[in-house]
Amino acid sequence: MAGKRNGKRTTITLKEVAELSGVHASTVSRALNPATRSMVMPAVVERILKAAKKLGYQPDPVAASLRTGRSSLVGILVPDIANTVFAPILSGATERLDEQGYSVIVSDVGNEQGRQIDLVAKLMARRVDGLILATVSRDDPLVAYCIERNLPAVLVNRAETQSRLSAVVSDDALGMQLAVDHLSELGHKRIAHLAGPTRHSTGFLRRRGFAQAMAANGFDAAAAPCEVADAFTREAGAVAMRRLLDTHRGITAIAAANDLLALGAYDVLHERGLSCPGAISIIGHNDMPLVDMVAPALTTIRISHREMGRQAADLLHQAIEQPDAPARNVVLPPKLIVRKSTAAPPSTK
Amino acid sequence: MAGKRNGKRTTITLKEVAELSGVHASTVSRALNPATRSMVMPAVVERILKAAKKLGYQPDPVAASLRTGRSSLVGILVPDIANTVFAPILSGATERLDEQGYSVIVSDVGNEQGRQIDLVAKLMARRVDGLILATVSRDDPLVAYCIERNLPAVLVNRAETQSRLSAVVSDDALGMQLAVDHLSELGHKRIAHLAGPTRHSTGFLRRRGFAQAMAANGFDAAAAPCEVADAFTREAGAVAMRRLLDTHRGITAIAAANDLLALGAYDVLHERGLSCPGAISIIGHNDMPLVDMVAPALTTIRISHREMGRQAADLLHQAIEQPDAPARNVVLPPKLIVRKSTAAPPSTK
Repeated sequence: MAGKRNGKRTTITLKEVAELSGVHASTVSRALNPATRSMVMPAVVERILKAAKKLGYQPDPVAASLRTGRSSLVGILVPDIANTVFAPILSGATERLDEQGYSVIVSDVGNEQGRQIDLVAKLMARRVDGLILATVSRDDPLVAYCIERNLPAVLVNRAETQSRLSAVVSDDALGMQLAVDHLSELGHKRIAHLAGPTRHSTGFLRRRGFAQAMAANGFDAAAAPCEVADAFTREAGAVAMRRLLDTHRGITAIAAANDLLALGAYDVLHERGLSCPGAISIIGHNDMPLVDMVAPALTTIRISHREMGRQAADLLHQAIEQPDAPARNVVLPPKLIVRKSTAAPPSTK
Repeated sequence: MAGKRNGKRTTITLKEVAELSGVHASTVSRALNPATRSMVMPAVVERILKAAKKLGYQPDPVAASLRTGRSSLVGILVPDIANTVFAPILSGATERLDEQGYSVIVSDVGNEQGRQIDLVAKLMARRVDGLILATVSRDDPLVAYCIERNLPAVLVNRAETQSRLSAVVSDDALGMQLAVDHLSELGHKRIAHLAGPTRHSTGFLRRRGFAQAMAANGFDAAAAPCEVADAFTREAGAVAMRRLLDTHRGITAIAAANDLLALGAYDVLHERGLSCPGAISIIGHNDMPLVDMVAPALTTIRISHREMGRQAADLLHQAIEQPDAPARNVVLPPKLIVRKSTAAPPSTK
């Protein structure tokens, strides 16, 4: 099949492009690679691009890989492609990596977190130049696995405890501060936290951020009601919300660790005939697509997951080019988006 | 970087696995490849897998590619990864292709449909064994491009007019029949169609399906109000919905060509102070995530996009293994999901 295909192709070489543009083949190579293009004068780049286009030149990444020892392939591990948090991360990262001349192999870890190392081993066998990991837990053996093998890797959305790899994350503490400040300004005194799984940095840091923000608002943080959901899903959010309402009295507001948990809380209020925001105010986290359309429209903390993906791509590119540079974290500021699910508590109306 | 990495790796060869399990290396090769595993006796497969695991053997797809002329790489082109229709297609396809031993390179075409052929040329330069295309228009030069180059390719969600490549699609005519029958049974007589772009098979076939279903219900299909949205987006849906209400009188129900268009119609009803389903009933198409949570919960036609992705993966695997087999279409039946956005028309209440 491949042979048949190759037989039909008339392959234009780098050398032919070099001849037509009157420069050395190595200059053509530099000009055609987005990562090294700036090393060639703009006028020459333009001449080379014109010649390449005229001849219908298509770079051969497999041949280039043999020359350079690099594949220009990058792997991305996501917990679930169809999740509306991870899809835009993947989209932003892919867009930026494409501009930088990489192709992206995507691996959906799904429910089998245990398969992560297997999947990475497979990607290494593909000779990927680096990895973007959206999957890691706070203490993930995968991080050491990549470091031991000198495989450039960066984390996105979720970070690990030791910060051994560069990461792009949202400022989870700031996000929870914005949420609690908003509820406190509305007059709420009995504010509960619907927490996410603490094995992930997002669940852990948002929970800690909630406690800090409660203390900063003059509340007894240790006494604030809190239930931890098993997963960042609507179903797990509903289960934790039932526990929250069954074991604590007088809650007038819920700060949820993400939007899906908040929607699970909506389901429970509906079940029990409680109104939102009449009886209980709810604020989410993420501002995922369509939460402006649910009833009531969800007040939430907006994170640009697409931008996180783009920045992760940039960090990975740097990690590949400068493998000895120290790890660094890019922390993006989230934003409060007020909609209809938060209002003053019932007693003050 | 790559050299440094390789230097640290102790590579286990196929031959060592063969020695430990007492079989020929070619048997090991067949047993380890999911696509050829059935050629080896189960007991032998088990022995080989145990030996491979014990030695920490990792297949080398790059070396295998040189031997077999195949890369075990597959490309998937999607119009927008972050779109909740295409993310589950990608997820289902990736899951199944992973089981079959392929790795998936994902290409997000984004808004630049014109880049499609460039992206495919890049994927071919990566020596992909085949392509899954979720992007094609009804008359897409990309299809001829793949056929001329003998590149195995299948279509998913959107088909092309000539059916030259295998495709997995939803039964769009049946979907519109379910929608129109439901509205007609509720007593609606003035039913309009909020159509999708007819350059895509989904927009075209759902529009034709709407007309057929109207005729089957005894209505004058040619006289039924219809406006075509420029894109399958909420914004384009709102624009077309305004035109629909401005130029036609007495509409009591809308059959939208997808859920995003239906949500755009919600926005316009809200704008104009019209209630749904009190004044106008609305039915969507796709049953994308969260449309059960919007107000009112959207009645729609459910398509399993994840299953479409899985079936596309199977079709592609077959197209790669049997390049001369004729193209075939897999048509999946959609399902009516009744929620709160449809009710009897106002006059009959």
